[in-house]
Amino acid sequence: MEILDGRKTSNEIKEEIAKEVSKIIESGKRAPHLAAILVGDDGASLTYVNSKVKSCQKIGFESTLIKLPSDVNEDELLSKIDELNNDDSLDGFIVQLPLPKHIDEQKVINAVNPDKDVDGFHPTNVGKMVLDLPTYLPATPKGIMELLGRYNIDISGKHVVVIGRSHIVGSPISILMARKSNPGNATVTLTHSRTKNLKELTLTADVIVIALGKAEYLTGDMVKDGVVVIDVGITRVEDSTRKSGFKLLGDVNFDEVSKKASYITPVPGGVGPMTIASLLMNTLQAYKEKDL
Amino acid sequence: MEILDGRKTSNEIKEEIAKEVSKIIESGKRAPHLAAILVGDDGASLTYVNSKVKSCQKIGFESTLIKLPSDVNEDELLSKIDELNNDDSLDGFIVQLPLPKHIDEQKVINAVNPDKDVDGFHPTNVGKMVLDLPTYLPATPKGIMELLGRYNIDISGKHVVVIGRSHIVGSPISILMARKSNPGNATVTLTHSRTKNLKELTLTADVIVIALGKAEYLTGDMVKDGVVVIDVGITRVEDSTRKSGFKLLGDVNFDEVSKKASYITPVPGGVGPMTIASLLMNTLQAYKEKDL
Repeated sequence: MEILDGRKTSNEIKEEIAKEVSKIIESGKRAPHLAAILVGDDGASLTYVNSKVKSCQKIGFESTLIKLPSDVNEDELLSKIDELNNDDSLDGFIVQLPLPKHIDEQKVINAVNPDKDVDGFHPTNVGKMVLDLPTYLPATPKGIMELLGRYNIDISGKHVVVIGRSHIVGSPISILMARKSNPGNATVTLTHSRTKNLKELTLTADVIVIALGKAEYLTGDMVKDGVVVIDVGITRVEDSTRKSGFKLLGDVNFDEVSKKASYITPVPGGVGPMTIASLLMNTLQAYKEKDL
Repeated sequence: MEILDGRKTSNEIKEEIAKEVSKIIESGKRAPHLAAILVGDDGASLTYVNSKVKSCQKIGFESTLIKLPSDVNEDELLSKIDELNNDDSLDGFIVQLPLPKHIDEQKVINAVNPDKDVDGFHPTNVGKMVLDLPTYLPATPKGIMELLGRYNIDISGKHVVVIGRSHIVGSPISILMARKSNPGNATVTLTHSRTKNLKELTLTADVIVIALGKAEYLTGDMVKDGVVVIDVGITRVEDSTRKSGFKLLGDVNFDEVSKKASYITPVPGGVGPMTIASLLMNTLQAYKEKDL
C-alpha cells in the first residue's frame, strides 16, 4: 500500500510554479495575481481563504483579499464582482463559498467572468469541461486527476466508482475520469443517496472516489484487494485527547481500507492540499492566457 | 415486452404544442419561430432539416430555412449567426451538423447566443445541464427522458448502463439520468471503447442506453430479463429486397433483445422522432421565455 501524499505533491507543484514565477518576474513582467472575496466571518471559510492567500505569497503570486460584511447585500457583492471582472491587473478571482443565505449563490457564480473563474464553477466552464474544450477545471477534481497523474496511476479502462454527485466534486470528477483524455478513459459509475446495493458496485471498483462528508463511511468489507481510494470527505469530530479538542476524519475507514488498497489518500494531507495547488495552477494558466 | 413508440409519443407532443400555438395565435401574438442553417447539400442533412421544417409547419410554428453553399467561408457563416442572434422575430435556431471540414464546428456552436441555442449544444447550456439550472437540454437526451417519463418508467435507484460517450448523446444522457430530478436519480455507468468486460456491466443493467452507431451490437446474451433498452444508433445497410435498396438498423439486435426486454425502442420510430419533438419543445420554451 502506498500513500498518495497530497501535501508533498502539492508542495512540488508550488515549487514548480514558484520557479516559473521567478522567471516571469526576471523577464520584467508583473506577477500573476489572484483575488479572493470573503463574505462574513465564518471560521472555516476564513481558514480556507487565508491558506489560499498564504500559498500565493509563498510562490510569488500577488494576492488580494477582499472582506465584505456578512450583511452585504447581493447588489453590492455583484458590483464588486463586476469591478474585479474589469480589473486588468487581476488574472483570476474566487468567491469563497458558502455565502450567507440572503444571497443567491448561483447568481454570484454566474456573474464571474468565465475567463477569470479560476474555481471553474461558472456554467460555461463546466460545459467546456464536458465538451473537452480548454477551460479552468474545478479545483478539487483537477487536483485528484493531477495526483493520480503524478503517481503514474493509469485509470484507462479501469472501473471507477464515484460516491456522491455534488456539483463541485462527484459530478465533475465522474465527467473528467470518463473523458477521452489522459488521465481519463475510465469506465465510470456515479452513485449517490438513491443508489441501491452500493457495496456490490464498490466491490467491483478498481478506483473509488468518495465525497460524501460522512465520517468513515467506506469500510474494509466494501472494497476489493488492490483498490485505489481517493477520500474527499472531511468531518470534524470531537477528540478530548487532542489539544485542539477535535480531529479530522475522512469518508474512508482508513485503518480497514488501507489494508486492502494499493494506493490511498490520507485525511488530512490528501485531496485538500491538491485543491489549493489546482487553484494556483488555474491562476497561472489565466495569467498566461492574457499574453502580457 | 412493450414497444416504446417514439413516433406515437412524438405525435402526441406535437399535437399538444399545436394546441398551445393555436391559443397563442388566437390571443393575437405571433407564432414561435425556428430557423435552421444548412451548409452544403449533404443528402442526410437535407433530409433531417426538411423534416424539422415540416414539423414546424405542422404545428403552426413559423420556420426559416437558410441554405448556404458548401464553400461558404467561416466568417460568412459566423456573420449569418450573428444576424440570427440579433433577430427578435426569431426564438431559436440550429446549425445542422456536420459542417464542411474547412469550418471550425466548435467555433460555430460557441457563436450561437445560448438563449437561442435550442439544440442545447452551447457550452453554457451544457454546463447549466450539469448544474441542474434551467436551460435547453440537448434534443436526443431530452427526447429519451421524455419518452421514459411518458411511459411512466421510473429510473430512480436503477442501474443504467450508457454505451458510448459522444457529446450529443452518451455523455449528456449519463448526466441527465444521474441528476437529482424526476426522471433521474439513477445509478449511471458510462462505458465506451476503452471499457473492459462490457458484458459484465450490461448483464447487471436495469436500463441500457446505446449510442454507438454499430449495427446490432447489443445481443441477447448481453442483457438480463426485464431490461429497458433505448437504442439511439441508426445505420444504413444494403437490402436488395427493398425498393429503397437499404434498411435502417439500430445498435440493438432487436429480435434477440426484445425477447428479454420489458420495454424497448424500435429503429426507426423510437428515439429519432423524439429528437425532433424535443427541438420543438425547446423552441416553444424559448418563445415563452421572451414573454411577448
